[in-house]
Amino acid sequence: MPKTDAANLTAELIKCPSVTPAEGGALLHLEKLLVGAGFECTRVDRGEVSNLFARWGEKGHPHTFGFNGHTDVVPVGDEAAWSKPPFGAVIEDGIMFGRGSTDMKSGVAAFVAAAMDLVKDTPPQGAIVITITGDEEGDAVDGTTALLDYMDANQEKMSVCLVGEPTCPNEMGEMMKIGRRGSLTAWFTFKGVQGHAAYPHRAKNPLPAMAQLMHQFSSYELDQGTEHFDASTLAVVTMDTGNPATNVIPSECKSTMNIRFNDAHSGASLTDWINEQVAETTRQTGIEIDVTIKISGESFITPPGPLSDLVASAVQAETGVTPVLSTSGGTSDARFVQHHCPVVEFGLVGQSMHQVDEHVSVAQIHQLKEIYSRILKDYFA
Amino acid sequence: MPKTDAANLTAELIKCPSVTPAEGGALLHLEKLLVGAGFECTRVDRGEVSNLFARWGEKGHPHTFGFNGHTDVVPVGDEAAWSKPPFGAVIEDGIMFGRGSTDMKSGVAAFVAAAMDLVKDTPPQGAIVITITGDEEGDAVDGTTALLDYMDANQEKMSVCLVGEPTCPNEMGEMMKIGRRGSLTAWFTFKGVQGHAAYPHRAKNPLPAMAQLMHQFSSYELDQGTEHFDASTLAVVTMDTGNPATNVIPSECKSTMNIRFNDAHSGASLTDWINEQVAETTRQTGIEIDVTIKISGESFITPPGPLSDLVASAVQAETGVTPVLSTSGGTSDARFVQHHCPVVEFGLVGQSMHQVDEHVSVAQIHQLKEIYSRILKDYFA
Repeated sequence: MPKTDAANLTAELIKCPSVTPAEGGALLHLEKLLVGAGFECTRVDRGEVSNLFARWGEKGHPHTFGFNGHTDVVPVGDEAAWSKPPFGAVIEDGIMFGRGSTDMKSGVAAFVAAAMDLVKDTPPQGAIVITITGDEEGDAVDGTTALLDYMDANQEKMSVCLVGEPTCPNEMGEMMKIGRRGSLTAWFTFKGVQGHAAYPHRAKNPLPAMAQLMHQFSSYELDQGTEHFDASTLAVVTMDTGNPATNVIPSECKSTMNIRFNDAHSGASLTDWINEQVAETTRQTGIEIDVTIKISGESFITPPGPLSDLVASAVQAETGVTPVLSTSGGTSDARFVQHHCPVVEFGLVGQSMHQVDEHVSVAQIHQLKEIYSRILKDYFA
Repeated sequence: MPKTDAANLTAELIKCPSVTPAEGGALLHLEKLLVGAGFECTRVDRGEVSNLFARWGEKGHPHTFGFNGHTDVVPVGDEAAWSKPPFGAVIEDGIMFGRGSTDMKSGVAAFVAAAMDLVKDTPPQGAIVITITGDEEGDAVDGTTALLDYMDANQEKMSVCLVGEPTCPNEMGEMMKIGRRGSLTAWFTFKGVQGHAAYPHRAKNPLPAMAQLMHQFSSYELDQGTEHFDASTLAVVTMDTGNPATNVIPSECKSTMNIRFNDAHSGASLTDWINEQVAETTRQTGIEIDVTIKISGESFITPPGPLSDLVASAVQAETGVTPVLSTSGGTSDARFVQHHCPVVEFGLVGQSMHQVDEHVSVAQIHQLKEIYSRILKDYFA
């Protein structure tokens, strides 16, 4: 039986202009292919987002290998700056160009191709669940979460899950992700009383309170890292007043900080800590401080074990490179999947993601399919 | 001989729309009156600014009483918000309304009226010099400075000088000024390297350096006041970044601070101190910091003595109130005059200056003329 060409499938997906939340034909195309290969497919749409749930094999089988990925892409940006059409999938010297070529239509295509070949050639003892969202680059509230809600409501299960995001910084195979840091953003508003700069005692300047609090936060060492995580980081990202008059003390100023935190913390523990620091600054300065905190994701980890061993040995066998088990980087939809089952992430080199002239090596797409095929074969062995 | 009515003269001056740098007919009107009273008048125009120099009596007389004031006014602002026409000099219940009614056409009118009456009724043994500028509310580079340059070049002298700015916070007579604090403004630019908030070690965030430096400056006590001065003040007036992305570390941020300093400091000593703090912060943080410093005026004082005694006793005699000898407040053209001769400031209550519906009590204008008349009489006695 002819094998499915993962590079061709990647090109077909790139040609679907699926900028979040547009589906662009990408999920429809995958659904048709997967149905043809014997998958039961369900469109799980929520809000303005389309998502695809696909299962091959028995519902709830104790050996159900899960995959999670997305076909939505970030906007093209300045199209004039692209040297190739962003939805053209032009190949030049073995490199395929297009928005989503790296992040992550190639990952989706490689897994779908591997799974379709497996179920045709050597149908496994078990099941394969493929969850593809159209809302990973957006707010992510109607994407993988909707798919997991659908699965819960319909007794669908994954025993383990592989997320196919690009994970390798430079070289194919060098890194997989077994967890991610959490992310918290805090917005501060400092409220004082306006006045003339020559008479500061008649005003209440909010700026010294902001400087003090942001200095304290910036100087604080949250931790020195944990067993599987780097040290948590805190970045003040903006401080703003907008006062053009050098002889006026302003009534208000604002700042924002972002924390990427490991498993030594939780969104709740950091929220408590931030509120304590704020209260202390108000006590010391008399400046009222409003805080709004948003936790984009808690930190999580799938500790090294059978799933990471399975993926790492397949990567090693296909590339000769032993992947580092990392928890670095930003967030991904693994943060939702981890509540459902053990999850790891492995994909190709992500250097050009979100950039102009995003591109991927065609050979790397084929190699990724081989790795995914080996993972599936080993899992069901 | 009929007395000159200072309130009428104030109204005539208010009707001249002399928003800096427009002369508006105000100086022309004064020149005509003063020439009529026997003053030698010279228009000292520089740039787009008009100024008036007037002397009665012998040039260089060792008893030359000087006066300094301005006829230019700040803009009307939102004219619709005024309840009376801003250049109408409407009087209602003994209150005269108009831009410049307080700051300081009433002060100019009161002194000119007092001086004209004196030289007509009882010509003094000595001289009177009146310097009126049209550039006090603007940049002040072509105003009183131009008049003093003219005087230097033409061997014109003032033995002492009274500046007629409003000096009383609430009650007529309660305060005169014998000096002013200096003013220094510093603009800082902090230069780092942009990056992703999740990887702060790959970026160089300029915000912690700004927070640290502004916190240090805000926390520092410059002094506790000196014999004639309140404590110096330091106000951070703005901190700005303009970064809308919570996951991006910005490359640059800016802040500004304003220092009002007493005679324990100079512009040069503060500049050295600021540069040291900046260098230390750069050493600690690795962030490059550009600083631009502008010294708007050095602190100065005419120590309590014959001139302040003269003015204070006249105020006390006319109002029953003993004026405090103060050095508080913003800058005035006394900062230029102090290089020429001893200078003090006394004028009426300045509450509504620069505001909508600026107004002055007609009775207070008459009272101010009486005070100025007594000062002149006592000076020449």
